[in-house]
Amino acid sequence: MEAGGGRVYDVGMAATVEAQVLKIHDDAADDPRADRLAVEAPLEVRFGGGAGAGGTGTLMMRTPGEDEDLVRGFLYGEGIIAGAGDVVGMSRPPAAAPDEEGNVIEVALAEGVAAVAPERFTYSSAACGVCGKTSLEALVVRGEPSRSTVRVARAVLHDLPARMRAAQRTFRDTGGLHASALFTPEGELLVLREDVGRHNALDKVVGWALAAGRLPLADLVLLLSGRISYELIQKAIAAGIPVVAAVGAPSSLAVTLAERYALTLVGFLRPSSMNVYAGAERVGDR
Amino acid sequence: MEAGGGRVYDVGMAATVEAQVLKIHDDAADDPRADRLAVEAPLEVRFGGGAGAGGTGTLMMRTPGEDEDLVRGFLYGEGIIAGAGDVVGMSRPPAAAPDEEGNVIEVALAEGVAAVAPERFTYSSAACGVCGKTSLEALVVRGEPSRSTVRVARAVLHDLPARMRAAQRTFRDTGGLHASALFTPEGELLVLREDVGRHNALDKVVGWALAAGRLPLADLVLLLSGRISYELIQKAIAAGIPVVAAVGAPSSLAVTLAERYALTLVGFLRPSSMNVYAGAERVGDR
Repeated sequence: MEAGGGRVYDVGMAATVEAQVLKIHDDAADDPRADRLAVEAPLEVRFGGGAGAGGTGTLMMRTPGEDEDLVRGFLYGEGIIAGAGDVVGMSRPPAAAPDEEGNVIEVALAEGVAAVAPERFTYSSAACGVCGKTSLEALVVRGEPSRSTVRVARAVLHDLPARMRAAQRTFRDTGGLHASALFTPEGELLVLREDVGRHNALDKVVGWALAAGRLPLADLVLLLSGRISYELIQKAIAAGIPVVAAVGAPSSLAVTLAERYALTLVGFLRPSSMNVYAGAERVGDR
Repeated sequence: MEAGGGRVYDVGMAATVEAQVLKIHDDAADDPRADRLAVEAPLEVRFGGGAGAGGTGTLMMRTPGEDEDLVRGFLYGEGIIAGAGDVVGMSRPPAAAPDEEGNVIEVALAEGVAAVAPERFTYSSAACGVCGKTSLEALVVRGEPSRSTVRVARAVLHDLPARMRAAQRTFRDTGGLHASALFTPEGELLVLREDVGRHNALDKVVGWALAAGRLPLADLVLLLSGRISYELIQKAIAAGIPVVAAVGAPSSLAVTLAERYALTLVGFLRPSSMNVYAGAERVGDR
């Protein structure tokens, strides 16, 4: 990662981590207090030993815990192994850097296994933001810390999910789509895009802005329908968006990135409550 | 795709498609009736013309609509283009096969653009089940149509989400994790795994079963916390699971795959209602 600042949570192998969150209920903000975030952390899977594709590997974002099961299930799902016996060993190499602690697994495949094109090893399911990269250092974000001085009233934020839902034609028909929408600080809807993939919905919004000559999207609010992963914040930073809000929960890495790039990050956005995870100075009384 | 059967929805460029669904309310099943599904369909992005990486491409799963915006936003997010002018044209080539209709875009990049390692073109955000493949024909599923004669009582299904939620320690702490769980047909929880990535949660379950020597997972019920995409059904088929249920909605391609591989697929699973999209013969009165 680049740029400075932002708490890097020492997550080790924990599935959750404590964070300071500003909780707002009925328009009253408490002091920041401790809450727990789901950990999102990279797992690098290196193939060594045996007849495996030595030297290649894959990187995925995951919540730590049952990493060995994750690796087995992933390799099975990809058709790389056909049974448990095709993995002859898994080990954790000594960490080369503190933030690699617990985040690397070396897999030894049995003789004759791994007759798979190497490029199949260069991505992984939940890792699309870092697909094709094979090192933890690859978690690079393109973009600058936000200097936007925009302010958004709490009352405006509370209303956004209902405004987005009202405009979601396809969701209304199917109940099955993610959405991304851009709003002005006054709550006016600029663009809404839907997709079965939450990353796609955001890509469609950014692509719209790009074609319209509106990048960077300074002083606008991005609303997401689901949970907030690392990759969505990465895309928001690249598009210059200063305020990201969602109905769902953010991951630990989403909060770290938001802090590091001076984004405002709001989660659990409801008609009368919300959690502010970063950049609370942009959330105002009016 | 392999194997026969299963309706292939003629989706064209629509974002939703009509499907026959068995709706169950208060333990009473209506006749199957028409409902709408969110379309999940592959988009192949080919790079040709200009100075681009001719001959390479990427495949992503997406909901049709604003495909050009999706491509622009995706390329921008990946750092492949820096502005709208880096794309000098997009076109739809004549479809080589009926199911490619509307699902291929050719992108012409400007001179000097695309100084990117080719492997960065071999995957895409929402496409992880088909990452690294560069053709629509690559949507191959490993596995056989299910021959399981297991039956699950409606009352058991209705209870599963509450049972899973009760066992979700990390979700309770954070509100931010997806879960996958395996149950017996009597509703006994065998294993539960959580992750920020829904595919990871399922990979962890399958990896557990693999290590425990329990594959194929015939006669068990898989419960998913979120929506049901193509890739989750693909993983269930590979693991031999006959019944998949979820609290969320399935995509069109998830239903097609479930039908084709004789899976039972239940969505919108609630305490007193559910939708059965495929394999209703395994859902019984008791």
